[in-house]
Amino acid sequence: MILPKPLRKPSKKLRDVLASNLRSFRRERQISQEELADMCGLHRTYVGSVERGERNVTLSTLEVIAKALGVSVPSLLTPREHDRHTPE
Amino acid sequence: MILPKPLRKPSKKLRDVLASNLRSFRRERQISQEELADMCGLHRTYVGSVERGERNVTLSTLEVIAKALGVSVPSLLTPREHDRHTPE
Repeated sequence: MILPKPLRKPSKKLRDVLASNLRSFRRERQISQEELADMCGLHRTYVGSVERGERNVTLSTLEVIAKALGVSVPSLLTPREHDRHTPE
Repeated sequence: MILPKPLRKPSKKLRDVLASNLRSFRRERQISQEELADMCGLHRTYVGSVERGERNVTLSTLEVIAKALGVSVPSLLTPREHDRHTPE
């Protein structure tokens, strides 16, 4: 049985946490979007769209990005101290 | 430009963490797979397949499940103390 997939989007808040973390971890490691994309087997424009908070990424994509950056998947989705403006 | 989507799967380890956490948080709250599915707008069989570690879920699905269980998305993906067998 194949059910229609609901069209859903992650909240702006969660997309923004991922976008901000991806960008800051990547910059700390001094790698470009293109280099990160190559390390992950993703397209440069895809990495750019994740960094703009536009994507509803899958767990496998989160995992490959986390591995390339040397961080855990949960840490990619957790607001970093210097980005945290409001208490959780 | 539409690129072919690579067929990727999250690691068994990560799928298993999600599966185990989903099941244990759900049972702690004494809700069935069907009740959780209803709360999330998902199908019961889909929730079952996530609990069997079969799915490459999206961020939006993680978020709707986390919200229904009253936990954060990162905590759904972090090994819980009683499930942790090996150091991180």
